[in-house]
This record gives sequence, structure tokens and C-alpha cells, in this order.
Amino acid sequence: MATLDLASLAAGDRVQHELMVRSREDKTTKNGDPFVVLQLGNATGVISANVWKEDVPTIAGVRAGTVVQVIGSVENYQGRRQLKFTAPPRVVAASAVDIDEFLPRISVSIASLWATVDKWRADMKSKQLRAAVDLFFADDEFRARFERTPGAPRGHHAQIGGLLLHVVEVATIARASAKTMRGDVDLVTAGALLHDIGNVETYGITAAGFEYTQPGYLIQHMVLGSLMLDRKFRALPEGTFTETQELELHHFVQSHHGLLEHGAAVRPMTLEAELLHWADQSSANGNNFVEAMEDSELFPGDEQLSVKKSWRLDRKVWRRSHAWD
Amino acid sequence: MATLDLASLAAGDRVQHELMVRSREDKTTKNGDPFVVLQLGNATGVISANVWKEDVPTIAGVRAGTVVQVIGSVENYQGRRQLKFTAPPRVVAASAVDIDEFLPRISVSIASLWATVDKWRADMKSKQLRAAVDLFFADDEFRARFERTPGAPRGHHAQIGGLLLHVVEVATIARASAKTMRGDVDLVTAGALLHDIGNVETYGITAAGFEYTQPGYLIQHMVLGSLMLDRKFRALPEGTFTETQELELHHFVQSHHGLLEHGAAVRPMTLEAELLHWADQSSANGNNFVEAMEDSELFPGDEQLSVKKSWRLDRKVWRRSHAWD
Amino acid sequence: MATLDLASLAAGDRVQHELMVRSREDKTTKNGDPFVVLQLGNATGVISANVWKEDVPTIAGVRAGTVVQVIGSVENYQGRRQLKFTAPPRVVAASAVDIDEFLPRISVSIASLWATVDKWRADMKSKQLRAAVDLFFADDEFRARFERTPGAPRGHHAQIGGLLLHVVEVATIARASAKTMRGDVDLVTAGALLHDIGNVETYGITAAGFEYTQPGYLIQHMVLGSLMLDRKFRALPEGTFTETQELELHHFVQSHHGLLEHGAAVRPMTLEAELLHWADQSSANGNNFVEAMEDSELFPGDEQLSVKKSWRLDRKVWRRSHAWD
Amino acid sequence: MATLDLASLAAGDRVQHELMVRSREDKTTKNGDPFVVLQLGNATGVISANVWKEDVPTIAGVRAGTVVQVIGSVENYQGRRQLKFTAPPRVVAASAVDIDEFLPRISVSIASLWATVDKWRADMKSKQLRAAVDLFFADDEFRARFERTPGAPRGHHAQIGGLLLHVVEVATIARASAKTMRGDVDLVTAGALLHDIGNVETYGITAAGFEYTQPGYLIQHMVLGSLMLDRKFRALPEGTFTETQELELHHFVQSHHGLLEHGAAVRPMTLEAELLHWADQSSANGNNFVEAMEDSELFPGDEQLSVKKSWRLDRKVWRRSHAWD
Amino acid sequence: MATLDLASLAAGDRVQHELMVRSREDKTTKNGDPFVVLQLGNATGVISANVWKEDVPTIAGVRAGTVVQVIGSVENYQGRRQLKFTAPPRVVAASAVDIDEFLPRISVSIASLWATVDKWRADMKSKQLRAAVDLFFADDEFRARFERTPGAPRGHHAQIGGLLLHVVEVATIARASAKTMRGDVDLVTAGALLHDIGNVETYGITAAGFEYTQPGYLIQHMVLGSLMLDRKFRALPEGTFTETQELELHHFVQSHHGLLEHGAAVRPMTLEAELLHWADQSSANGNNFVEAMEDSELFPGDEQLSVKKSWRLDRKVWRRSHAWD
Amino acid sequence: MATLDLASLAAGDRVQHELMVRSREDKTTKNGDPFVVLQLGNATGVISANVWKEDVPTIAGVRAGTVVQVIGSVENYQGRRQLKFTAPPRVVAASAVDIDEFLPRISVSIASLWATVDKWRADMKSKQLRAAVDLFFADDEFRARFERTPGAPRGHHAQIGGLLLHVVEVATIARASAKTMRGDVDLVTAGALLHDIGNVETYGITAAGFEYTQPGYLIQHMVLGSLMLDRKFRALPEGTFTETQELELHHFVQSHHGLLEHGAAVRPMTLEAELLHWADQSSANGNNFVEAMEDSELFPGDEQLSVKKSWRLDRKVWRRSHAWD
Repeated sequence: MATLDLASLAAGDRVQHELMVRSREDKTTKNGDPFVVLQLGNATGVISANVWKEDVPTIAGVRAGTVVQVIGSVENYQGRRQLKFTAPPRVVAASAVDIDEFLPRISVSIASLWATVDKWRADMKSKQLRAAVDLFFADDEFRARFERTPGAPRGHHAQIGGLLLHVVEVATIARASAKTMRGDVDLVTAGALLHDIGNVETYGITAAGFEYTQPGYLIQHMVLGSLMLDRKFRALPEGTFTETQELELHHFVQSHHGLLEHGAAVRPMTLEAELLHWADQSSANGNNFVEAMEDSELFPGDEQLSVKKSWRLDRKVWRRSHAWD
Repeated sequence: MATLDLASLAAGDRVQHELMVRSREDKTTKNGDPFVVLQLGNATGVISANVWKEDVPTIAGVRAGTVVQVIGSVENYQGRRQLKFTAPPRVVAASAVDIDEFLPRISVSIASLWATVDKWRADMKSKQLRAAVDLFFADDEFRARFERTPGAPRGHHAQIGGLLLHVVEVATIARASAKTMRGDVDLVTAGALLHDIGNVETYGITAAGFEYTQPGYLIQHMVLGSLMLDRKFRALPEGTFTETQELELHHFVQSHHGLLEHGAAVRPMTLEAELLHWADQSSANGNNFVEAMEDSELFPGDEQLSVKKSWRLDRKVWRRSHAWD
Repeated sequence: MATLDLASLAAGDRVQHELMVRSREDKTTKNGDPFVVLQLGNATGVISANVWKEDVPTIAGVRAGTVVQVIGSVENYQGRRQLKFTAPPRVVAASAVDIDEFLPRISVSIASLWATVDKWRADMKSKQLRAAVDLFFADDEFRARFERTPGAPRGHHAQIGGLLLHVVEVATIARASAKTMRGDVDLVTAGALLHDIGNVETYGITAAGFEYTQPGYLIQHMVLGSLMLDRKFRALPEGTFTETQELELHHFVQSHHGLLEHGAAVRPMTLEAELLHWADQSSANGNNFVEAMEDSELFPGDEQLSVKKSWRLDRKVWRRSHAWD
Repeated sequence: MATLDLASLAAGDRVQHELMVRSREDKTTKNGDPFVVLQLGNATGVISANVWKEDVPTIAGVRAGTVVQVIGSVENYQGRRQLKFTAPPRVVAASAVDIDEFLPRISVSIASLWATVDKWRADMKSKQLRAAVDLFFADDEFRARFERTPGAPRGHHAQIGGLLLHVVEVATIARASAKTMRGDVDLVTAGALLHDIGNVETYGITAAGFEYTQPGYLIQHMVLGSLMLDRKFRALPEGTFTETQELELHHFVQSHHGLLEHGAAVRPMTLEAELLHWADQSSANGNNFVEAMEDSELFPGDEQLSVKKSWRLDRKVWRRSHAWD
Repeated sequence: MATLDLASLAAGDRVQHELMVRSREDKTTKNGDPFVVLQLGNATGVISANVWKEDVPTIAGVRAGTVVQVIGSVENYQGRRQLKFTAPPRVVAASAVDIDEFLPRISVSIASLWATVDKWRADMKSKQLRAAVDLFFADDEFRARFERTPGAPRGHHAQIGGLLLHVVEVATIARASAKTMRGDVDLVTAGALLHDIGNVETYGITAAGFEYTQPGYLIQHMVLGSLMLDRKFRALPEGTFTETQELELHHFVQSHHGLLEHGAAVRPMTLEAELLHWADQSSANGNNFVEAMEDSELFPGDEQLSVKKSWRLDRKVWRRSHAWD
Repeated sequence: MATLDLASLAAGDRVQHELMVRSREDKTTKNGDPFVVLQLGNATGVISANVWKEDVPTIAGVRAGTVVQVIGSVENYQGRRQLKFTAPPRVVAASAVDIDEFLPRISVSIASLWATVDKWRADMKSKQLRAAVDLFFADDEFRARFERTPGAPRGHHAQIGGLLLHVVEVATIARASAKTMRGDVDLVTAGALLHDIGNVETYGITAAGFEYTQPGYLIQHMVLGSLMLDRKFRALPEGTFTETQELELHHFVQSHHGLLEHGAAVRPMTLEAELLHWADQSSANGNNFVEAMEDSELFPGDEQLSVKKSWRLDRKVWRRSHAWD
């Protein structure tokens, strides 16, 4: 059964597909009747469904994280699309479910992103930097975790594959910057690939979506990244890297947020660390724009000015109506 | 006579060249004797010279902005190189001087920067954006002013050619960003080329160096840029651009500083304006790093950590001692 | 038919008047029944009306911006006054409507404000400043637009006539400041009259109320003000004003917000620009107090301390209960 | 002997006048010889004098705060005017000195400022507010202290009479604001007159100039003002003012700095307190501009842009070269 | 009748106790039926009760601040416990009610806190500091007010006894700090006991709970504390304290918030005032943590990470699941 | 030879002791004569000495870090004490020097501080926390490094033993806080002992004094502390600590600066981490006060208000002149 494209559903469409329950809220009407609001989603988006009084017992086993077989149709309810079940949703056994199919996922091909990364690795002139990058990026287990990790739990790149996409964007921008500013392209590439490795331990994937792990909120991704680097370094033959070489790689991790108030342990102290910081900003904020332009809460119709502020960008955004001929 | 390379002078070197007086300070020793400190420079840098009591009358006509024929040698004085005149400096007639030869100048070829700009113009698919850019960049008089303007009077790109170099760096980075983030490359290129046009009316070049013009300090470069755009637009046949097309180009000018507290009239409201903003930051701060690494006040010897903070970057900077093999 | 004074309506009053629909929200009760909440207003205020299930079809043609003939009475609903229709509202043809009659309007006479402005113009000793002011204030078309423009789309002076009232307040305060501080009274008057001219292109008036125009959000009112000034200057015989005279007038426009983080392009650099800035603050914030004191959301009863913060002032405000005998 | 106008002295002028020693610095040349730098002043300004090696013993009794009879002439020394003694300065007995004659003093007539204050008092319609103001302003001892107090020890109004001038400026602006904004003119006048009464206990006048008292730095002028008010209130017959009337007067004192970060105990909560705050800002900052325009450190010649930032205003300031005809 | 422990109630429990009405909201269902939401509480907490259509007339006399005799049982309603009346609540005559029994109260014994305070007083070596402290803490009327006052109306220590608990915590921490940092323990104890005395006039206790008094919002607790000190000082024989001794005690009051932006009139200028400031921070923020850990809105179940930010602490908080064996 | 107490030297005293050269500056008088300014110090303080023209050759081998045998006497020079050599200083062989004797050192006994720490360790009820602390504090090599490390290279506790003193102060305050706030005393003690362990790799001791190491500036002390913890944890038998126990100890290290803008990786999320943060502030700022009160640059005489701001505290400080009898 092909994945249902939730973004393109219109009122009247019939639905007979598997969807994951993202959240379930049990409520009571003012008349004292119970009802339930479900959020149902897959890799393409989310849609809600209300279950009224008499049907509530039919969804007793339905919880956040459950995958259900849905039969119903799309309606308009208070100006929004909504699912109306025509038969009780049937719970799919957890053992039969691949959770990733039901989480948001980047639209770019993950394989093509890896191809770009591997091309950069192959092109490196510095054997030491190649070796440093390969501590992680030549490790299939790491690659498997990395490509599943979002760029953030909410906000920019909050999708399966988001971290990989983000890192490719950052490296692309930082490499262009280093070329035009006469920096070391290999070095800034290594910094870009390694700067966010801690995210694989910072964000967890559950049936309910992406969220911070305990290490993620107690010591955050940059400290985790340095611990990961240090454990790899400690396992190498002594002398593989000098002390300051190790420190320079840690410095990319610790300084890439630029300012202490944005979480950096230190401000960037080299040209390459500085360029990495701005490339990181450009990718994160640029991605926020890309998503804001497609956000139907900001642009419910054909507005030019968004009807409210993007919470990610803390401002209204604008869609041009003209073309540039 | 070839330009003297002030950066490579060592104690004991003989000097017999034209230099411009950047500044003259008349002082008095505690014994009541007059002496004068001159700063002398050309396109490659600056060196100082002290003129003591008995020789002060020999430099009566020497003022900031005067070009003088210098005969002397290089000494160490309190740990710094300094010029010692062996004959009184001779004033060169203003009519015989090309001021630009004596001001700091970028080390990159201006012609090659123009070639890059012109290639981007030629590659544009949008005729309208090409037309907008050509309002300025196809105008030889404008190009002549533009290529002489610094990026800033102090700080990043404070050199003849600095604005052109900065704009090429910004456009290079913004184009790479737009490609990887799926933005409009022509549009961001136009934004990059136009964002700082107001600088040609903001910074003046005098014999004493670069400084703000009256329009520069009273209404600053972004307002000046919009006035320049508007005058060009008003002179075009009606309908050349739609009102919102004109506004989008103004918006690049007015939003490129990103935040109101950094002088932006508005925050960026499109992907392309956002990417331009971060590219501008990357070029400006990256250039500050490039110059800090070569600044003998920060690194008087072979230090790894600079001995004081770079005032441009408000932090100490670091020079790695290791190579990446 | 006289304008209905919405502020003085009490429960039980009969209503048979024209009102404009400010907004319409279509909702559904938890029982699945449709109902509609209308906001209806005129120059004196706003009142809401609920239309229940069976009557929803009678208001099919009623949209935000429509003027309707209302027949009904005032009720209390959950502690607030509300209109109850006793007959279906009848849509008035757009061609028969003067939109301004239905928008909030200052309570001060617009004619008396113009009289004050014109007295100041007539009293000016400087012919050049008089000429600068008259570029706009002797132009009937500009005056007509100016007197319809609010001071802001929300917040202080958000009324027809609000900009004119604001400018008269600012000029009054700035003139008193300049007199006591030995500044140039003509100059600060000119600055006060011209500082917000860009607002006529920044705020639009639609049936739904006041809102930002596209130029308003893309480049904001100060840049628009300078473009308006520049176009007038460029149309004058050369030499009418010197370059620095023009710049000084632009400087009032660009600096009146005082600080970059408040949107100023530059900080005030003259006594008169500084005094204008504080007068602008005093008028805007003072007006926020005037309106807060009459705001029934802040003072639903006879409280001394407002029950919540004024969003305009970001603090609670206080109404004294004592008189000063 | 008339007061010497220090501002108008030129090189070559003869001086034979009494001046107060503002400061004395004992220094040593690099040759090990002692010398002394004196700052000498009166109500019109300050001038420095160097006393070299052999003459140092002649000024043994000369200290900060001493008044000396000076005989000498004016010279240029390193681009500044300086006094050169032609005879040893003679110390004037402290008992023969009126310290106020030697401190900076406002150029406006103190009597005319009092006349304005007294006119406002006489015009008050509210007997209670008149009574509140008269607790201080009908008290000759208080008036004598008040008129000697500066507005601040450094910065705006740092002159004998400065506080009185500042309060008249504030009241003038606040009264105009209240009139145009429909506030209570008597009330804002009372607030303006009382808001800074604590300054008479905050700033001390010593021979060395103005400085903070111990109460001034340990609890600052607003707390001192409230203590002064409270002691007067406690001495009145019970019921003279209600509790909230007393509080409203305290509130003017405690809120006039506007924001907590500027030292206010609370933000203004009434229209009149708000208008007082902005009038206070306008007077303080406007006065900084008035003084900056006459400051020879900012404008050593006929510059239009000041050569450095005014430390009071934290920006460069501009003097127009054009007239407005 | 023993106090009902609201915190330990479970669904199904029977209730027959007196509770105070904290608030009453009259609402209307979408069907137009009236209903009422009551918040009922005592010293141990709060619980809500809904009264539906037909029962609304039975609670006609029930208002915020009324104490009612409740008969009913505990139910679960939308995931929260709620009271269901089985008989109409009966209003208890105000004359028969001790309001304090129905307000939140600290769980620590007030008597034991006083014992600690009195031990510190008895241990003081400085008779003057003992005398200063005794101006308030030997006054039974003051003690009675003090022990009823909360530490703040919302947030930390918002309970009867909260101010006393806070002051004991602050003094405990400040005394330990002074001992280890070699400060004056008597002095910092006096500062700790006196720093918040103004709170007894700042927070009022009404039937509806704690709230700011008019003096509290118009001039805040530090100014009130200094007025209280000053009135006591003025009533003493002259010479009891020197002027600077009085000032030092005022300085503790005025500086304990540390920074102007946090409401301090001045920053701490002595070691003891500095240590008091940090002890105050530690007690206030530590108490916020204590309460956050027990807040069922932050931890509705057995979460480790709170489900939302604590508004007091502006961050999420964490409850460890491990023990430290 | 006993250590010379530099603090108690007076003009006229004879000196015949070993001192370390802290810095050497080679200068030239305006007459062109060379002279040298030496800073000489030991554990008790610093004194300067000028060496003039003819004596410069006698100190050819004297550099920063050299220990010299000094023979001379104390003079007053420009109001400061200064050493005058009566014989050329003699260089002591590096092999005969114990550098620590010549660096500033805390006045408290290091042994007594360790006794306190060891008592706390012995008193711990939690074996796991004891084990965690002992990973470092039962390791003699670590203790030897720890007790030599300053609390900071400049500012608070910048002395041999400073880190140990700081940690004892922090633990003392945090323990008192935890006791009164019902926190876990063992846990907060462990946090206090471990929070700054990274400082032993952050600050280096050279002959020239304390300074940042390369790891110190490139990744700072909190990241270094976590790396040290992690390496110890990784070397333990699996299961010694649970993952969240390890994280809680890292969390103390990463959160103790409280706010991101002060360098914290995360804000404190537990009561104990919060209390540790405030105790750290109290010790650091309290120590700054202790040192400010004895700083002769702030109090050159018997002033009550310091003559300038303490750079550590960014404010003037006050010394009471009264006693509290």
C-alpha cells in the first residue's frame, strides 16, 4: 500500500491507509459527553480526527504511537480538513510496523546526500582530516544513526534525514565561504561534518515523534559531541593527532553557535570556525524560511504577508506574487 | 619607482621612496622641546617616524595628506620598526600625486573581481533582474566609483577595492547558499550586488584616509542606497518593474543587516534576503579574521593566542601551530 | 440617521442602525451545530453578535467589510453586552457606504488640528523651512490622505485622524522643549510635521480596519518618508535647498525613533532631532495611557489597579480614586 | 575685581585674578625632576598650569580647594591654552573666600527661574497640590539649598543652579505635554517640582567640585526624596493628605526614571507620571546636546561632525554649517 | 473538625468540610445554559467544583472569599480531580471564620522559625545591631504581621509564613557565607532580618488570596522598608545610631536585589550586602525548585523531565529517577 | 631566609631578599636613553623597580620568570613605593628556585582546607557519591595539582591555593543552603567538589604568573571537566554508576554558571544544581569584595568610597568608617 500523501488530501477524498497516532486527547463536552481528538500522521504530514461520544469505546486500544488502519473520508470542520471515520480504526500490531515510515522525512534523497559527503571525503588532501572525519563517517553504524536523526526536535530540519541534510547544507556554504575567503577547505569541511555529531545522542525518536533524550537536556549536544570525539581519540594509537589538532576539532564543536548566549562554550577563534558558524546560521534560518513558505498556518490562502509570525523566525514572512521575468 | 613594500622592511633597510603623510602630531618633551610624530604610508601599509627638536623646522610644510620623498633607514625603536630620516623629507607637489597609490588597497586583482561580476550578470536568466543590476553595474562611472570605495572606513575591507571584494565574497556565499537551499540564484545575486551600493556615497576618500561623508553619518548607507535605487527607477519607462519588484529590491538593501539593533530598517522577510544577510555576516567577519591573523599588534611574535582582543571581533583569536598533514 | 454611540449602549436598548461588519467567524458547537460570531462597529466602537444555527442562512451575504442595517436589542451575555438581532440584518450596497463613517475616529476636531498646524506654518520666520513644510502641508491631496491616516494600525492613535492628532501633540511638546532649551523652534516644528509623512503610504484603510501596506512592511515608514521627501526635492529648482539642508530634514525622519533597536536608521545628532525624539515618545506613550484608562478590558469595574497589563505599555496602570482638592 | 571669563581668554592675555585650584597632580619627569599640574577654575570654566622643577617649592601650600591669587599670562601648550605664572600664586585665606564664586554656574538668572516656579505655584487651582509643593518650595532654607545644587555631579546640568534649571525645563515640557494630552496640569507641575528634591542630599559641594554624598551613593536620590517627603507628611496634621495622595506624590519620585534598569523603583502607572518621565529625559538629554555643541573637546575647530563621541550621549554629534533662511 | 488535606484526596472520597471559595466564574454553555466554576481551598491546597444549570440558584450567596460547608464527593473530570456536591453548599457566617485557616500555609512550624530568629538575636555580640533588629523583631505587633505575610503574592514562598521562612533561609545561607568569607556575621544577620520588612505593607491578604496593596504597586517593598526604618530611627534618642550606621541598614534594604534591572536602587557596595544578595537569590530560586518538584502541572505523572517550563524558573526542571546509594 | 613581606614594606626599609621578576619592560626616555621597569614579586605581593640608563647593562640576564637576589632600599616615587637597587641584582640559578614560593598564595592554610574537604568526604552517607568524589579527591597526584591551581588567572582567587579555597567556600555555602532548603547535602557537596575540576587543565602556572592553557581558551573549563569525568567513568567497572547518575554529575559541571550567557551549557535543572550555582556566585563575588577592600588602587588612603570602580565588580565599593558596638 503506497504512502498516503496527507498534504494533497481534499474534502471528499476517501482514505483507507495506515496512519500513526501522534497524540490522543480525551475531552468532555459541556454536556458531560466524552469525545476524543486524535492526531494521525505519516511521513508526509498530519491530520486530525474527532471521535464522538458513542464511538469512543471503539478506540479503546488507540494510544499515541499506535499505528491504525483507517477507513474514512475527509471533511471540512471549522475551516480545516479533518478525517471522519466510517469504520472503527483497527490497531496494527507493533511488530508489523516500521516507525520511520510514519515520521516526517526530508524530501531530498538520503543516498544523494551521502554521495556528496563521500565525494568530499574522497577529495580531502589532508590525510589526518580524512582520518578524523572517518572516525565517524566511515562507520556504518554511525551513518545509520546519523541519517535517522532530525536537525532539531522542533523547528528547522525536524525530519528523518534532517541532520544529514543540514550538515550537507552547512558544508556546502562553508566550503564556498572558505574558497572565496582563502580559508582551508578541507578543515572547514571536517568541522562542518563533525560539528553536530552529538545530535545523535541528543534527540530521540519515539512513536510520538522527536524529543530530547536525558543526555540531550542535561548536558546538550555540544558536550555530547566532545565526549564522542574524545572517546574515539582515546582509542587511537598515541600520536595519531597532536593535542592541538584534537583541540581544534573540539573547538569547531564548542564554538559553532557563535555566542555564549546561544549556547557556545567559546566564541570562534579561527577563520574556519567563524565561517562554520555563519554557515550553520544560514542553513538553520534558511531552512526555517523554506518551511515557513509552505506552512498553511502562516499562509492559509494566497496571502503575500503571512497572517501571523513564524515562531521559528519571530517575524512575519512574505511571499512575492510577482515573477522575475 | 616601484612601490615600497612597507610590510617587508627590516631594520637597517635603506628607504628612498615617496610616502604619504597619514597623520602628524606635534608634541613637546617634558623638557619643553618640540618633536613630531609622523605616520607615513602607501598602498602596502604604514610606518612611523619621529622628528626631534632641531629637525622640526625642516618639516614645516609637511601635513596629513602631503606626499613626501623620503630618504632614510629603518630602525628599531621600543620594539617597533621606525623610519629615521637621513635627509629632510621633500614635499611632492599635489598635482604630481595620484592619491590612490598611497592608500591601502586589496591584494586581489580588481579586474578579476569585475570579471566574476560580469560573468554572473551574463549568466542571469531573468532579464528583469539583469536590467536592475545593470542600472548600476553597466554604468562605467558607477563602476569607477564602486571599485575605489572601501567596504568600511575602519574594520573589514577598509581598502581601495574593499567594497568590490566584499560584494564578490557575499555573492559567492549567497549563491552557494541559494543553490543548496533551493532559493532563486539570480535573485540573490542581484540582491548581493545591490545591497551596499549606498556605500559609494557613504564613505569618502581623503588624503588622510577613509571617512564618513555627511550623508553617511546623517542618514547612513542603507537609506542612501534606497534613494539611489529610487532615482534610477523613477527615470525608467513606467512598467519596467512592478511596484512589488521595486520593493523587493529595496527590501534587500533595507534588511541586509538582519536585526534592527544592527541598523536594519526591517528584518529579512524572504529566503533570499535571509541568505544574503548571513552571507554578508560571513564575509565581514571572515575578513576581520583574515586581517586579524596578519595583525602584528595582535601577534607581535609567534604567539598562538593573540596578545589582546581584536577590536573588530571583540575577542582573542588563535593561530594554529600545527599543520594538517 | 445619526451615528449610534456604541460606547453608551446599555442592556435593553433598541438598535436600528447601520453598522460595519469588522469580522465574521464561522464556528461549530460541540453538538455539531453551526453558529457565527460577528463583530460590528462604527466610528464610536465595536459590539459583537452571535447568530445561532437556524439563523445562519439569513446572513449568507454578510462578510467582513460589509455594512448592514441592524435591527435588534442589547443583551448581557457572559458579562458582556451583545447585540441580539430581532430581524435578519440587511446588507447595504457598497456604493451607498462611506467607509470612514464606520471606522474609529479621533474625538478631537480635525479642522481645529489643521488650524493649529496652519498657524504654526504662518508663524514660521524661516522661509526655507516654511517652503519645506509646504511641499506637503500646502498640498490638498496630501492633506486629505494625511488626515485619514491612523498613527499606527494598532496601539496609539489607531483612529482616523490619529496621525494628525499625533503630529500636533509631538509638535506642541517639541516646540515647548525647544523654547525652554534654547533650540530652533521653526526647525523642530518642521521636523515634527515631516517626521511621519511616510505613514500615509505605510498604513492602509480597508473595510476590515487599518493594516500595513506592502511598502509598509517591506521597507517601513521612515524609508518611505525619505523617498517622498527626495522625490519632492528632486522636482524643485536646483539650489532651493543645499545638500545639508536636505540631509537635515531626512535626518529628522531617520532618527526620530531614537535608537537603532527601535528602528531608527541613525541616532539623533542635533538638539532639535533629540527633542523631536522625546516628544514623539511622550505623545505615543501618553496616548497609550489615555486609551488604557478608558479600556474596559483593563478596568472592567471601578478598580484602581488594572486587572491585567496593558499590552501597549507592558505594565499594569493605576486610576486614582482621590481628587486633588 | 570682576570675574575673569576663562572661556574668552586667548594666548598672550594677562591674568591677575583669583582662581580656585580644582586639582593638583604631583609628577616626575623621566629625568627624575618633579613638576606639578594644576587645574584652576571659577564660575566660567577651567584652565591648567604647569609648575616646573625649580618653582615647585613656591606652591607648597597650594591644594585642591585652595583659592589663589594668580599673576601670569596665557600660552599655547601642545595645542591648548595654558596659564604660565609670572609670579608665585598667593594663597587666599579660606575665610575670605566664597566657594560658590569659583564653581561652574548656569548662565540663566536664578531669580527668573524662581519667578517662573512661583508663578506656577500661584496659578495652581488645587489647594492640596499647592500645599504639597509648598512643603518645600515655600521654605527659604530649602530654596537656598535647592538653588545651589547641580542637576548631576557630572554630565547634564553639572552647575550651581543646574537642578533648578533642570526642574524648570522639566516642568515646562511636562505642562505642555499635559495640556495637549488632556492630563492634569497642576498635578504634573507638582510632580515635576518634587521629583528630584532628593538631589539636595545626594550631591555635595566641596572645594574640589561636585560629588556624591554618602547617602547619595548608598541609597541614591529617589529613596532620599521619599524620605524627605515622608518626614514632612508625618509632621502634618493627620488627614492633610489621604494615603493615596501621599502615595501618588511618592510615585512621581520613584517612577521618574521610567525603567528599572535606569534606577526607577517602579514604572510610571499614570498619564502624569509617564509625561513627567519623558519630560525628564528631554531636559537631561537636551541639556547634554546644548553642552556638547559648546564642548571644545568635541569640536576643537569648525568641524561639522564632532571629532569623537560625547561620553554623555554615547555618539558623535553634528553642527550644521548652513543657516535656515 | 480537622482540616481536610486536599492534596491527598482521591476519586471516590467523601467530603464534609469547610472550604473557602477562592474564585467564582459564571459561564454559559453553547446551548445557552448557565453554569458556574468554583475554586475551593484551604491551607493545604485547592480543588474545583462545577455547578450546572439547575443547581446554579442554590449557590446564589456564594462569592470569592465566602467560606462554605461542603458536602460531596471527589470525581475525576477530564483527568483532574473535582468536587461534586451532593447537597447545596451552606455559607458560613463571616464572623465565624478565621480566614488564615483557609489560605496556603508553610509546612514548617512557625514557632520553630521564631526560635531560630530569637536565638540569632540573643547571640549577637553587637548591642547596636541587636537594638536595630529589635526595633521590629522585639515588637509583638510587628511579629504578628510578619508571620502572616507571604514571601511573594505568587511564586516563591506564596504562603502564610512564607516571608518568615524566606528570611530564615536567607539568614542561614548568609551567615554561612559570612563565616567562610570572613564577613561580619552579626551584620549580615541584621541585614537578612531587615531586608524584606517592607513586605508587610506590600502584600495584602484577602479572602481571595494574596495580592499587592496600593503602596506595594505604587512604590514597592524596598522603598516601604526604608520608610519603616526611617520612622523608627526618627523616634529614637538622637545618637542611638550614627548617620552612616542608619545608611548601612538602609543599604541592605535598597541593594538586596543586586541589579538595578531587578529593582535594586543601588548595587551592593559591601561584602555583607553582596552576600545577602546571593543568599536572597538562593532562597527565592531554591524555593521555586522545591515547589516545582511538587507541582502536578509540571509533573502530571512520573516524568523525569517536566512537561512544560516552570513559569517561575523559565525552564524545564528534572526529577532524578535514580537514588544515590 | 624568611619570605620578605612586601605588603608591609615602608619607605626607607632595607631589602636583601630573593624576588621573582614578574615582568620586564624596556623603554626609552624622550631623550633617547634606555631604561627598564621591573615588576618583582613573591607570595606576598609585588613591587616595582626602575633601572636607569647607565645601569641597564647590569641586568642583561634579567627576564620575566627569573629569580634575582635583590639588594636595595624602598623609596617613594610618584606616590608609590618602589625598590631602588644599591647593587646589581644577581640572577639565581633556575635549578635552585621553587617557583611556587614566588607566586601569590592564599593566606589560609592549605592543610586546614584539605582537612575540611576530607571531613566532608568521610561524613558522606552515600557510598556512590563518596566513590565519585574519590575518583579525584582520593588521588594524591590530582590533589597536588588541584591545590596549586588558582581560582581564576585574574580576578577572584587568583592565587596558589585559590581553587581549593574557592571550592571549600562554595561547598560550605551550598551545604548550608541545602540543609535549610531540604536538599540533598551529600549530593550538593559532591557537586561543589567536582564543579571546577576542569580548572586544573585550564590555568597554567608559569614564571610570569597564571594564564590560560591552550585547552583553557579553546574549549574552556567546563568541557574539560566533563572530559576528565568521562575518562574516569569509562575506566570503572560497568555499572558502577547508572547513566543518569553520570549525567547528574556532568550536569553540575555544565550548569554551575547558571545562564548560557555566562558560559553554562545548560541552566540548572535540579534544586542541588541551582543551589550550587548561587553558592558559586557568592564565593566568587564575595572574594572579589574581600580583595577590593584591601586594594590600594581602590583605596589609596582612608577613603570610604573607593576612588574608582573595581573592574571585577564593575562598581565602586564602600568601606564603613563606623564600628558596630
